[in-house]
Amino acid sequence: MSGFRHIALFQWREDATAEQKRTLEDRLNELPGVIPELRAYAIGGDAGVNDGNFDFAVVADFADRDAYLVYRDHPTHRKIIDECVTPIVAERRAVQYAL
Amino acid sequence: MSGFRHIALFQWREDATAEQKRTLEDRLNELPGVIPELRAYAIGGDAGVNDGNFDFAVVADFADRDAYLVYRDHPTHRKIIDECVTPIVAERRAVQYAL
Repeated sequence: MSGFRHIALFQWREDATAEQKRTLEDRLNELPGVIPELRAYAIGGDAGVNDGNFDFAVVADFADRDAYLVYRDHPTHRKIIDECVTPIVAERRAVQYAL
Repeated sequence: MSGFRHIALFQWREDATAEQKRTLEDRLNELPGVIPELRAYAIGGDAGVNDGNFDFAVVADFADRDAYLVYRDHPTHRKIIDECVTPIVAERRAVQYAL
């Protein structure tokens, strides 16, 4: 296995609506079609198995760190963050690591 | 794609030593040989690309939620948590989601 993985976990604000969360997921799922550097991309809401979890996860795999940076700074990605993430996020934690 | 993914992100205590972190990684990397339910398993320390990140990530993929529960509750896994994670963890955030 080789590559570079980005993980972000989010806790949404209590007043985040189902509509806002659905719109965010729909727009994030457009990214693999826009950013060819995304080798694998899987987002999802917490399954509710364990108490105390965050609400939402993004895992994105790339060939290397430079490919991740293209994704991180891509204007379509930044636009989704500004329009759909920032308005509903309470907390965010992230890690990037070599695969 | 189908399956069930577990993600845990960790921030270590400031007094966690390099030796403690290395021992933890070595022991976690034994888990795929012990828990056949682990379909994919990738751990790693943060690459240092972005400020404010957590220190360490675990991503584990399973066929389904039941397979995840076998891993979560497996005695070898719990022993590593007790002996190697609990002594050095400051914060932990997790999400499980359907792939």
